[in-house]
Amino acid sequence: MKRNFKMTIKYDGTRYQGWESQPGVDMTIQGKIEKVLSRMIEEERSDDVNRDEKGSTDKSGGKNADEAGVKLMASGRTDAGVHALGQVANVHLDTTMSAADIQSYMNQYLPEDIAIEDLKDASERFHARYNALGKTYRYTCYYGDSKPVFDRKYVTVLDQHPDIKKMRQAAEYLIGTHDFKSFCANPRMKKSTVRCVDSIEIEKDGPYIRMYFHGNGFLQNMVRILSGTLLEVGFGNMTPQRVGEILEAKDRKLAGPTAKAQGLCLMKVDY
Amino acid sequence: MKRNFKMTIKYDGTRYQGWESQPGVDMTIQGKIEKVLSRMIEEERSDDVNRDEKGSTDKSGGKNADEAGVKLMASGRTDAGVHALGQVANVHLDTTMSAADIQSYMNQYLPEDIAIEDLKDASERFHARYNALGKTYRYTCYYGDSKPVFDRKYVTVLDQHPDIKKMRQAAEYLIGTHDFKSFCANPRMKKSTVRCVDSIEIEKDGPYIRMYFHGNGFLQNMVRILSGTLLEVGFGNMTPQRVGEILEAKDRKLAGPTAKAQGLCLMKVDY
Repeated sequence: MKRNFKMTIKYDGTRYQGWESQPGVDMTIQGKIEKVLSRMIEEERSDDVNRDEKGSTDKSGGKNADEAGVKLMASGRTDAGVHALGQVANVHLDTTMSAADIQSYMNQYLPEDIAIEDLKDASERFHARYNALGKTYRYTCYYGDSKPVFDRKYVTVLDQHPDIKKMRQAAEYLIGTHDFKSFCANPRMKKSTVRCVDSIEIEKDGPYIRMYFHGNGFLQNMVRILSGTLLEVGFGNMTPQRVGEILEAKDRKLAGPTAKAQGLCLMKVDY
Repeated sequence: MKRNFKMTIKYDGTRYQGWESQPGVDMTIQGKIEKVLSRMIEEERSDDVNRDEKGSTDKSGGKNADEAGVKLMASGRTDAGVHALGQVANVHLDTTMSAADIQSYMNQYLPEDIAIEDLKDASERFHARYNALGKTYRYTCYYGDSKPVFDRKYVTVLDQHPDIKKMRQAAEYLIGTHDFKSFCANPRMKKSTVRCVDSIEIEKDGPYIRMYFHGNGFLQNMVRILSGTLLEVGFGNMTPQRVGEILEAKDRKLAGPTAKAQGLCLMKVDY
Protein backbone atom coordinates (compact mmCIF):
# COMPACT_ATOMS: atom_id res chain seq x y z
CA MET A 1 0.00 0.00 0.00
CA LYS A 2 1.31 3.44 -0.88
CA ARG A 3 1.76 5.96 1.91
CA ASN A 4 1.80 9.72 1.41
CA PHE A 5 4.73 11.69 2.85
CA LYS A 6 5.03 15.45 3.37
CA MET A 7 8.56 16.84 3.35
CA THR A 8 10.15 20.25 3.92
CA ILE A 9 13.16 20.85 1.71
CA LYS A 10 16.04 23.32 1.98
CA TYR A 11 18.27 23.92 -1.03
CA ASP A 12 21.00 26.14 -2.38
CA GLY A 13 19.74 26.63 -5.95
CA THR A 14 23.05 27.98 -7.32
CA ARG A 15 24.05 24.85 -9.24
CA TYR A 16 20.53 23.89 -10.38
CA GLN A 17 18.35 24.61 -13.38
CA GLY A 18 15.40 25.08 -11.09
CA TRP A 19 13.04 22.82 -9.18
CA GLU A 20 11.24 20.98 -11.95
CA SER A 21 12.66 17.81 -13.47
CA GLN A 22 12.88 17.99 -17.26
CA PRO A 23 13.82 15.35 -19.82
CA GLY A 24 17.55 15.50 -20.56
CA VAL A 25 18.28 17.95 -17.74
CA ASP A 26 20.31 16.38 -14.94
CA MET A 27 20.56 19.34 -12.56
CA THR A 28 17.11 19.90 -11.10
CA ILE A 29 16.17 19.66 -7.42
CA GLN A 30 13.12 17.50 -8.12
CA GLY A 31 15.18 15.17 -10.32
CA LYS A 32 17.88 14.72 -7.66
CA ILE A 33 15.32 13.91 -4.96
CA GLU A 34 13.30 11.52 -7.15
CA LYS A 35 16.49 9.68 -8.09
CA VAL A 36 17.43 9.10 -4.45
CA LEU A 37 13.90 7.99 -3.55
CA SER A 38 13.72 5.61 -6.53
CA ARG A 39 16.97 4.04 -5.44
CA MET A 40 15.70 3.71 -1.88
CA ILE A 41 12.50 1.96 -3.02
CA GLU A 42 14.48 -0.28 -5.35
CA GLU A 43 16.84 -1.30 -2.54
CA GLU A 44 13.93 -2.05 -0.22
CA ARG A 45 12.32 -4.23 -2.92
CA SER A 46 15.45 -6.15 -3.69
CA ASP A 47 15.80 -6.80 0.07
CA ASP A 48 12.21 -8.09 0.04
CA VAL A 49 12.91 -10.30 -2.97
CA ASN A 50 15.95 -11.75 -1.23
CA ARG A 51 13.95 -12.45 1.89
CA ASP A 52 11.09 -13.90 -0.15
CA GLU A 53 13.38 -16.15 -2.12
CA LYS A 54 14.58 -17.69 1.10
CA GLY A 55 10.95 -18.28 2.03
CA SER A 56 10.20 -19.52 -1.51
CA THR A 57 7.56 -16.89 -2.31
CA ASP A 58 7.96 -13.78 -4.42
CA LYS A 59 5.30 -11.24 -3.52
CA SER A 60 6.94 -8.14 -4.98
CA GLY A 61 7.48 -9.65 -8.44
CA GLY A 62 9.72 -8.00 -10.99
CA LYS A 63 8.93 -4.36 -10.23
CA ASN A 64 11.81 -1.96 -10.71
CA ALA A 65 12.45 1.66 -9.72
CA ASP A 66 10.76 3.10 -12.81
CA GLU A 67 7.63 1.15 -12.03
CA ALA A 68 7.85 2.54 -8.52
CA GLY A 69 6.86 5.78 -10.27
CA VAL A 70 8.35 8.08 -7.65
CA LYS A 71 6.81 11.45 -8.46
CA LEU A 72 7.34 14.43 -6.22
CA MET A 73 4.65 17.11 -6.05
CA ALA A 74 5.96 20.48 -4.82
CA SER A 75 4.07 23.55 -3.62
CA GLY A 76 5.32 25.19 -6.80
CA ARG A 77 8.35 25.45 -9.03
CA THR A 78 11.33 27.63 -8.25
CA ASP A 79 13.46 29.12 -11.06
CA ALA A 80 17.07 28.28 -11.86
CA GLY A 81 19.33 29.74 -9.15
CA VAL A 82 16.53 30.39 -6.64
CA HIS A 83 16.98 28.99 -3.13
CA ALA A 84 14.58 27.53 -0.57
CA LEU A 85 14.55 27.28 3.19
CA GLY A 86 11.06 25.80 3.32
CA GLN A 87 9.92 24.27 0.02
CA VAL A 88 7.23 21.65 0.67
CA ALA A 89 6.52 18.56 -1.41
CA ASN A 90 4.60 15.33 -1.04
CA VAL A 91 5.22 11.90 -2.51
CA HIS A 92 3.40 8.57 -2.50
CA LEU A 93 5.72 5.69 -1.71
CA ASP A 94 5.19 1.96 -1.43
CA THR A 95 7.47 1.40 1.57
CA THR A 96 7.46 0.01 5.08
CA MET A 97 10.32 2.28 6.20
CA SER A 98 9.74 4.79 9.00
CA ALA A 99 9.56 8.48 8.15
CA ALA A 100 12.75 9.06 10.20
CA ASP A 101 14.62 6.37 8.26
CA ILE A 102 13.48 7.82 4.92
CA GLN A 103 14.65 11.32 5.95
CA SER A 104 17.98 9.95 7.11
CA TYR A 105 18.47 7.93 3.89
CA MET A 106 17.64 10.98 1.76
CA ASN A 107 19.99 13.31 3.64
CA GLN A 108 22.78 10.76 3.32
CA TYR A 109 22.47 10.34 -0.45
CA LEU A 110 21.29 13.76 -1.61
CA PRO A 111 23.99 16.26 -2.70
CA GLU A 112 25.25 18.55 0.08
CA ASP A 113 23.24 21.50 -1.28
CA ILE A 114 19.86 19.77 -0.85
CA ALA A 115 18.56 18.77 2.59
CA ILE A 116 15.33 17.28 3.89
CA GLU A 117 14.54 19.38 6.93
CA ASP A 118 11.51 17.39 7.94
CA LEU A 119 9.56 14.37 6.64
CA LYS A 120 6.32 13.00 8.03
CA ASP A 121 3.47 10.65 7.13
CA ALA A 122 0.62 12.77 5.75
CA SER A 123 -3.03 12.05 5.10
CA GLU A 124 -3.68 10.23 1.84
CA ARG A 125 -5.29 13.33 0.32
CA PHE A 126 -2.56 15.85 1.19
CA HIS A 127 -1.36 17.63 -1.96
CA ALA A 128 1.54 20.09 -1.61
CA ARG A 129 0.32 22.34 -4.45
CA TYR A 130 -3.47 22.23 -4.19
CA ASN A 131 -3.49 22.52 -0.40
CA ALA A 132 -1.02 25.44 -0.21
CA LEU A 133 -2.79 28.43 1.30
CA GLY A 134 0.03 30.94 1.17
CA LYS A 135 3.74 31.43 0.62
CA THR A 136 6.50 33.63 1.98
CA TYR A 137 9.39 34.66 -0.25
CA ARG A 138 12.43 36.70 0.78
CA TYR A 139 14.51 38.82 -1.57
CA THR A 140 17.91 39.85 -0.15
CA CYS A 141 20.10 42.73 -1.34
CA TYR A 142 23.40 44.04 -0.02
CA TYR A 143 24.81 47.54 -0.16
CA GLY A 144 27.85 48.53 1.88
CA ASP A 145 31.53 49.46 2.01
CA SER A 146 32.49 45.79 2.30
CA LYS A 147 31.23 42.70 0.46
CA PRO A 148 29.02 39.74 1.44
CA VAL A 149 31.76 37.11 1.55
CA PHE A 150 30.09 34.13 3.21
CA ASP A 151 26.62 34.57 1.73
CA ARG A 152 27.69 35.96 -1.65
CA LYS A 153 25.62 33.38 -3.52
CA TYR A 154 22.43 34.23 -1.64
CA VAL A 155 22.27 38.02 -2.06
CA THR A 156 22.21 40.58 -4.86
CA VAL A 157 24.88 43.27 -4.46
CA LEU A 158 23.60 46.77 -5.25
CA ASP A 159 25.82 49.57 -6.51
CA GLN A 160 23.74 52.34 -4.98
CA HIS A 161 21.76 52.70 -1.78
CA PRO A 162 18.00 52.43 -2.28
CA ASP A 163 15.62 54.72 -0.38
CA ILE A 164 13.79 52.23 1.87
CA LYS A 165 11.05 54.69 2.78
CA LYS A 166 10.10 55.17 -0.87
CA MET A 167 10.19 51.42 -1.47
CA ARG A 168 7.77 50.95 1.43
CA GLN A 169 5.47 53.63 -0.01
CA ALA A 170 5.52 51.85 -3.38
CA ALA A 171 4.83 48.49 -1.74
CA GLU A 172 1.55 49.87 -0.35
CA TYR A 173 0.14 50.02 -3.90
CA LEU A 174 0.76 46.31 -4.35
CA ILE A 175 -0.95 45.06 -1.18
CA GLY A 176 -4.34 43.44 -1.75
CA THR A 177 -6.05 41.41 -4.44
CA HIS A 178 -5.02 42.70 -7.85
CA ASP A 179 -4.44 41.57 -11.40
CA PHE A 180 -0.62 41.28 -11.35
CA LYS A 181 -0.30 40.84 -15.15
CA SER A 182 2.33 43.65 -15.25
CA PHE A 183 4.47 41.56 -12.91
CA CYS A 184 4.22 38.23 -14.75
CA ALA A 185 6.97 36.94 -17.04
CA ASN A 186 4.53 35.00 -19.20
CA PRO A 187 2.69 37.42 -21.52
CA ARG A 188 0.41 34.68 -22.83
CA MET A 189 -0.73 33.46 -19.41
CA LYS A 190 -4.16 31.96 -20.04
CA LYS A 191 -5.20 31.38 -16.44
CA SER A 192 -6.08 34.20 -14.10
CA THR A 193 -3.29 36.61 -13.20
CA VAL A 194 -5.21 37.82 -10.14
CA ARG A 195 -3.41 37.15 -6.87
CA CYS A 196 -3.64 38.41 -3.32
CA VAL A 197 -0.44 39.82 -1.79
CA ASP A 198 -1.24 40.47 1.85
CA SER A 199 2.08 41.81 3.04
CA ILE A 200 5.38 43.20 1.77
CA GLU A 201 7.85 43.99 4.53
CA ILE A 202 11.09 45.74 3.75
CA GLU A 203 13.78 45.46 6.39
CA LYS A 204 17.15 47.17 6.64
CA ASP A 205 19.73 45.28 8.69
CA GLY A 206 23.20 46.82 8.41
CA PRO A 207 24.24 46.44 4.78
CA TYR A 208 21.36 44.01 4.09
CA ILE A 209 18.01 45.01 2.61
CA ARG A 210 15.45 42.22 2.80
CA MET A 211 12.01 42.23 1.19
CA TYR A 212 9.50 39.69 2.51
CA PHE A 213 6.49 38.93 0.32
CA HIS A 214 3.50 36.97 1.59
CA GLY A 215 0.56 36.06 -0.61
CA ASN A 216 -1.78 33.28 -1.66
CA GLY A 217 0.29 32.56 -4.75
CA PHE A 218 2.75 34.17 -7.12
CA LEU A 219 2.95 34.28 -10.94
CA GLN A 220 6.00 33.34 -12.99
CA ASN A 221 8.94 35.56 -11.88
CA MET A 222 6.46 37.74 -9.99
CA VAL A 223 8.52 38.16 -6.81
CA ARG A 224 11.63 38.99 -8.83
CA ILE A 225 9.79 41.54 -10.99
CA LEU A 226 8.19 43.09 -7.89
CA SER A 227 11.65 43.26 -6.25
CA GLY A 228 13.23 44.76 -9.36
CA THR A 229 10.45 47.35 -9.58
CA LEU A 230 10.65 48.29 -5.88
CA LEU A 231 14.42 48.73 -6.28
CA GLU A 232 13.83 51.07 -9.24
CA VAL A 233 11.69 53.18 -6.90
CA GLY A 234 14.41 52.98 -4.23
CA PHE A 235 17.00 54.21 -6.73
CA GLY A 236 14.80 57.18 -7.62
CA ASN A 237 14.17 56.00 -11.19
CA MET A 238 10.44 55.75 -10.57
CA THR A 239 8.02 57.36 -8.09
CA PRO A 240 6.13 55.20 -5.57
CA GLN A 241 2.87 56.32 -7.23
CA ARG A 242 4.13 54.98 -10.56
CA VAL A 243 3.91 51.43 -9.18
CA GLY A 244 0.15 51.88 -8.78
CA GLU A 245 -0.09 52.99 -12.42
CA ILE A 246 1.97 50.02 -13.60
CA LEU A 247 -0.35 47.65 -11.73
CA GLU A 248 -3.36 49.29 -13.45
CA ALA A 249 -1.79 49.12 -16.92
CA LYS A 250 -1.46 45.30 -16.92
CA ASP A 251 1.65 45.60 -19.09
CA ARG A 252 4.88 43.80 -18.17
CA LYS A 253 6.96 46.28 -20.23
CA LEU A 254 6.16 49.09 -17.79
CA ALA A 255 7.42 47.30 -14.66
CA GLY A 256 11.06 47.21 -13.56
CA PRO A 257 13.63 44.56 -14.48
CA THR A 258 13.48 40.98 -13.15
CA ALA A 259 15.82 40.99 -10.15
CA LYS A 260 18.54 38.31 -10.15
CA ALA A 261 17.57 34.78 -9.10
CA GLN A 262 20.33 34.45 -6.50
CA GLY A 263 18.70 36.92 -4.09
CA LEU A 264 15.43 34.99 -3.93
CA CYS A 265 14.51 32.35 -1.35
CA LEU A 266 11.23 30.47 -0.78
CA MET A 267 10.91 30.68 2.99
CA LYS A 268 7.66 28.99 3.96
CA VAL A 269 4.50 27.44 2.56
CA ASP A 270 1.30 27.65 4.63
CA TYR A 271 -1.24 24.80 4.78
CA MET B 1 56.14 59.45 2.26
CA LYS B 2 54.77 56.05 3.22
CA ARG B 3 51.63 55.89 5.33
CA ASN B 4 50.68 52.92 7.49
CA PHE B 5 47.19 51.44 7.08
CA LYS B 6 45.36 49.04 9.37
CA MET B 7 42.74 46.85 7.73
CA THR B 8 40.20 44.28 8.90
CA ILE B 9 39.74 41.44 6.44
CA LYS B 10 36.96 38.89 5.99
CA TYR B 11 37.53 35.81 3.86
CA ASP B 12 36.08 32.49 2.87
CA GLY B 13 39.23 30.36 2.97
CA THR B 14 37.75 27.41 1.05
CA ARG B 15 39.60 28.06 -2.22
CA TYR B 16 42.89 29.21 -0.66
CA GLN B 17 46.11 27.57 0.43
CA GLY B 18 46.11 29.68 3.54
CA TRP B 19 46.94 33.29 4.39
CA GLU B 20 50.67 33.46 3.70
CA SER B 21 51.96 34.24 0.21
CA GLN B 22 54.49 31.68 -1.01
CA PRO B 23 56.64 31.60 -4.13
CA GLY B 24 54.87 29.74 -6.93
CA VAL B 25 51.56 29.55 -5.05
CA ASP B 26 48.86 31.69 -6.61
CA MET B 27 45.99 31.02 -4.21
CA THR B 28 46.87 32.73 -0.94
CA ILE B 29 44.87 35.50 0.72
CA GLN B 30 47.96 37.64 1.32
CA GLY B 31 49.07 37.17 -2.28
CA LYS B 32 45.69 38.25 -3.69
CA ILE B 33 45.60 41.37 -1.53
CA GLU B 34 49.21 42.37 -2.25
CA LYS B 35 48.59 41.98 -5.98
CA VAL B 36 45.60 44.33 -5.89
CA LEU B 37 47.49 46.89 -3.77
CA SER B 38 50.53 46.74 -6.06
CA ARG B 39 48.32 47.41 -9.05
CA MET B 40 46.65 50.30 -7.24
CA ILE B 41 50.01 51.91 -6.41
CA GLU B 42 51.24 51.32 -9.96
CA GLU B 43 48.14 52.99 -11.41
CA GLU B 44 48.52 55.97 -9.09
CA ARG B 45 52.17 56.33 -10.15
CA SER B 46 51.42 56.13 -13.85
CA ASP B 47 48.73 58.78 -13.34
CA ASP B 48 51.38 60.91 -11.63
CA VAL B 49 53.82 60.32 -14.49
CA ASN B 50 51.19 61.33 -17.03
CA ARG B 51 50.40 64.48 -15.09
CA ASP B 52 54.10 65.22 -14.66
CA GLU B 53 54.79 64.72 -18.35
CA LYS B 54 52.23 67.35 -19.18
CA GLY B 55 53.96 69.65 -16.74
CA SER B 56 57.38 68.59 -18.11
CA THR B 57 58.71 67.25 -14.83
CA ASP B 58 58.97 63.61 -13.76
CA LYS B 59 59.14 63.39 -10.00
CA SER B 60 58.15 59.73 -9.62
CA GLY B 61 60.76 58.42 -12.03
CA GLY B 62 60.66 54.88 -13.38
CA LYS B 63 59.43 53.09 -10.26
CA ASN B 64 57.21 50.09 -10.87
CA ALA B 65 54.91 47.97 -8.70
CA ASP B 66 57.66 45.60 -7.58
CA GLU B 67 59.66 48.52 -6.30
CA ALA B 68 56.54 49.62 -4.48
CA GLY B 69 57.32 46.60 -2.29
CA VAL B 70 53.77 46.17 -1.04
CA LYS B 71 54.12 43.84 1.96
CA LEU B 72 51.17 42.97 4.12
CA MET B 73 51.75 42.13 7.78
CA ALA B 74 48.93 40.10 9.34
CA SER B 75 48.17 39.35 13.00
CA GLY B 76 49.15 35.80 12.13
CA ARG B 77 48.79 33.16 9.43
CA THR B 78 45.66 31.10 8.92
CA ASP B 79 45.89 27.57 7.47
CA ALA B 80 44.54 26.41 4.12
CA GLY B 81 40.74 26.31 4.23
CA VAL B 82 40.42 28.38 7.41
CA HIS B 83 38.10 31.41 7.31
CA ALA B 84 38.22 34.86 8.89
CA LEU B 85 35.64 37.40 9.92
CA GLY B 86 38.18 39.72 11.54
CA GLN B 87 41.74 39.10 10.38
CA VAL B 88 43.82 42.26 10.85
CA ALA B 89 46.82 43.38 8.78
CA ASN B 90 48.82 46.52 8.24
CA VAL B 91 50.64 47.78 5.19
CA HIS B 92 52.92 50.74 4.41
CA LEU B 93 51.92 52.44 1.18
CA ASP B 94 53.32 55.42 -0.70
CA THR B 95 49.99 56.91 -1.72
CA THR B 96 47.95 60.09 -1.52
CA MET B 97 44.63 58.21 -1.79
CA SER B 98 42.12 58.43 1.06
CA ALA B 99 41.56 55.37 3.23
CA ALA B 100 37.96 55.16 1.95
CA ASP B 101 39.14 55.18 -1.68
CA ILE B 102 41.71 52.47 -0.99
CA GLN B 103 39.09 50.26 0.69
CA SER B 104 36.70 50.80 -2.19
CA TYR B 105 39.38 50.02 -4.81
CA MET B 106 40.39 46.85 -2.97
CA ASN B 107 36.81 45.58 -2.60
CA GLN B 108 36.22 46.22 -6.28
CA TYR B 109 39.25 44.26 -7.49
CA LEU B 110 39.62 41.52 -4.85
CA PRO B 111 37.90 38.17 -5.57
CA GLU B 112 34.37 37.88 -4.19
CA ASP B 113 35.53 35.66 -1.32
CA ILE B 114 37.87 38.29 0.16
CA ALA B 115 36.56 41.59 1.54
CA ILE B 116 38.09 44.56 3.30
CA GLU B 117 35.66 45.26 6.14
CA ASP B 118 37.49 48.32 7.36
CA LEU B 119 40.62 50.28 6.46
CA LYS B 120 42.09 53.24 8.37
CA ASP B 121 45.25 55.30 8.65
CA ALA B 122 47.25 53.92 11.59
CA SER B 123 50.17 55.27 13.56
CA GLU B 124 53.52 54.71 11.87
CA ARG B 125 54.52 52.16 14.50
CA PHE B 126 51.38 50.01 14.40
CA HIS B 127 52.30 46.38 13.69
CA ALA B 128 49.45 43.89 13.25
CA ARG B 129 51.43 40.97 14.66
CA TYR B 130 53.60 42.49 17.40
CA ASN B 131 50.80 44.67 18.75
CA ALA B 132 48.18 41.90 18.86
CA LEU B 133 47.13 41.36 22.49
CA GLY B 134 44.66 38.54 21.99
CA LYS B 135 42.62 36.59 19.47
CA THR B 136 39.22 34.95 19.30
CA TYR B 137 38.71 31.84 17.19
CA ARG B 138 35.44 30.00 16.62
CA TYR B 139 35.12 26.35 15.72
CA THR B 140 31.69 25.35 14.36
CA CYS B 141 30.22 21.83 14.23
CA TYR B 142 26.82 20.60 13.10
CA TYR B 143 24.86 17.58 14.22
CA GLY B 144 21.21 17.11 13.32
CA ASP B 145 18.56 15.30 11.29
CA SER B 146 19.03 17.72 8.38
CA LYS B 147 22.17 19.17 6.77
CA PRO B 148 23.83 22.61 6.81
CA VAL B 149 22.98 23.58 3.23
CA PHE B 150 23.84 27.29 3.07
CA ASP B 151 26.85 27.22 5.39
CA ARG B 152 28.13 23.77 4.45
CA LYS B 153 31.63 25.10 3.74
CA TYR B 154 31.91 26.78 7.15
CA VAL B 155 31.02 23.94 9.51
CA THR B 156 32.18 20.41 10.28
CA VAL B 157 29.37 17.87 10.18
CA LEU B 158 29.51 15.36 13.05
CA ASP B 159 28.12 11.83 12.81
CA GLN B 160 27.33 11.57 16.51
CA HIS B 161 26.12 13.98 19.14
CA PRO B 162 28.86 15.16 21.50
CA ASP B 163 28.16 15.57 25.23
CA ILE B 164 28.50 19.34 25.67
CA LYS B 165 28.68 19.13 29.48
CA LYS B 166 31.71 16.84 29.33
CA MET B 167 33.36 19.06 26.73
CA ARG B 168 32.91 22.05 29.07
CA GLN B 169 34.43 20.05 31.94
CA ALA B 170 37.41 19.17 29.76
CA ALA B 171 37.82 22.79 28.65
CA GLU B 172 38.34 23.81 32.28
CA TYR B 173 41.68 21.98 32.30
CA LEU B 174 42.89 24.08 29.39
CA ILE B 175 42.10 27.52 30.81
CA GLY B 176 45.12 29.47 32.04
CA THR B 177 48.78 29.79 31.18
CA HIS B 178 50.16 26.40 30.20
CA ASP B 179 52.72 24.76 27.97
CA PHE B 180 50.48 23.69 25.07
CA LYS B 181 53.13 21.51 23.40
CA SER B 182 50.66 18.58 23.26
CA PHE B 183 48.40 20.78 21.12
CA CYS B 184 51.01 22.05 18.66
CA ALA B 185 51.41 20.58 15.17
CA ASN B 186 55.11 21.44 15.05
CA PRO B 187 57.07 18.91 17.16
CA ARG B 188 60.33 20.79 16.65
CA MET B 189 59.00 24.18 17.77
CA LYS B 190 62.07 26.02 19.08
CA LYS B 191 60.30 29.01 20.59
CA SER B 192 58.18 28.79 23.71
CA THR B 193 55.01 26.73 23.49
CA VAL B 194 53.59 28.45 26.56
CA ARG B 195 50.37 30.33 25.87
CA CYS B 196 47.53 31.78 27.92
CA VAL B 197 44.02 30.64 26.99
CA ASP B 198 41.68 32.74 29.08
CA SER B 199 38.34 31.40 27.90
CA ILE B 200 36.77 28.50 26.02
CA GLU B 201 33.03 28.81 25.61
CA ILE B 202 31.00 25.99 24.14
CA GLU B 203 27.58 26.90 22.85
CA LYS B 204 24.76 24.70 21.59
CA ASP B 205 22.38 26.45 19.19
CA GLY B 206 19.93 24.01 17.60
CA PRO B 207 22.03 21.65 15.46
CA TYR B 208 25.12 23.89 15.81
CA ILE B 209 27.86 23.41 18.36
CA ARG B 210 30.25 26.37 18.51
CA MET B 211 33.49 26.54 20.48
CA TYR B 212 34.95 29.99 21.10
CA PHE B 213 38.60 30.21 22.11
CA HIS B 214 40.18 33.40 23.43
CA GLY B 215 43.85 33.65 24.27
CA ASN B 216 46.97 35.75 23.89
CA GLY B 217 48.18 33.63 20.98
CA PHE B 218 47.83 30.17 19.51
CA LEU B 219 50.41 27.65 18.26
CA GLN B 220 50.33 25.96 14.86
CA ASN B 221 46.99 24.08 14.47
CA MET B 222 46.41 24.61 18.20
CA VAL B 223 42.73 25.59 17.97
CA ARG B 224 42.00 22.68 15.64
CA ILE B 225 43.80 20.16 17.90
CA LEU B 226 42.02 21.57 20.97
CA SER B 227 38.70 21.29 19.10
CA GLY B 228 39.45 17.75 17.95
CA THR B 229 40.40 16.75 21.51
CA LEU B 230 37.30 18.34 23.08
CA LEU B 231 35.15 16.48 20.52
CA GLU B 232 36.83 13.18 21.52
CA VAL B 233 35.74 13.92 25.08
CA GLY B 234 32.24 14.78 23.83
CA PHE B 235 32.03 11.48 21.96
CA GLY B 236 33.00 9.61 25.13
CA ASN B 237 36.33 8.39 23.76
CA MET B 238 38.25 10.23 26.46
CA THR B 239 37.38 11.50 29.97
CA PRO B 240 37.47 15.24 30.74
CA GLN B 241 40.27 14.54 33.26
CA ARG B 242 42.33 12.97 30.47
CA VAL B 243 42.68 16.40 28.85
CA GLY B 244 44.54 17.61 31.95
CA GLU B 245 46.91 14.64 31.70
CA ILE B 246 47.52 15.28 27.99
CA LEU B 247 48.40 18.91 28.75
CA GLU B 248 50.89 17.73 31.41
CA ALA B 249 52.48 15.14 29.11
CA LYS B 250 53.59 17.69 26.47
CA ASP B 251 53.16 15.04 23.75
CA ARG B 252 51.15 15.77 20.60
CA LYS B 253 50.53 12.06 20.04
CA LEU B 254 48.29 11.86 23.13
CA ALA B 255 45.90 14.64 22.07
CA GLY B 256 42.92 14.15 19.74
CA PRO B 257 42.93 14.54 15.96
CA THR B 258 43.29 17.93 14.23
CA ALA B 259 39.71 19.02 13.50
CA LYS B 260 38.99 19.96 9.85
CA ALA B 261 40.04 23.41 8.67
CA GLN B 262 36.60 24.33 7.28
CA GLY B 263 35.02 24.66 10.74
CA LEU B 264 37.56 27.24 11.93
CA CYS B 265 37.18 31.01 11.73
CA LEU B 266 39.40 33.80 13.08
CA MET B 267 36.82 36.14 14.61
CA LYS B 268 38.69 39.04 16.17
CA VAL B 269 42.14 40.35 17.03
CA ASP B 270 42.53 42.59 20.08
CA TYR B 271 44.93 45.55 20.16
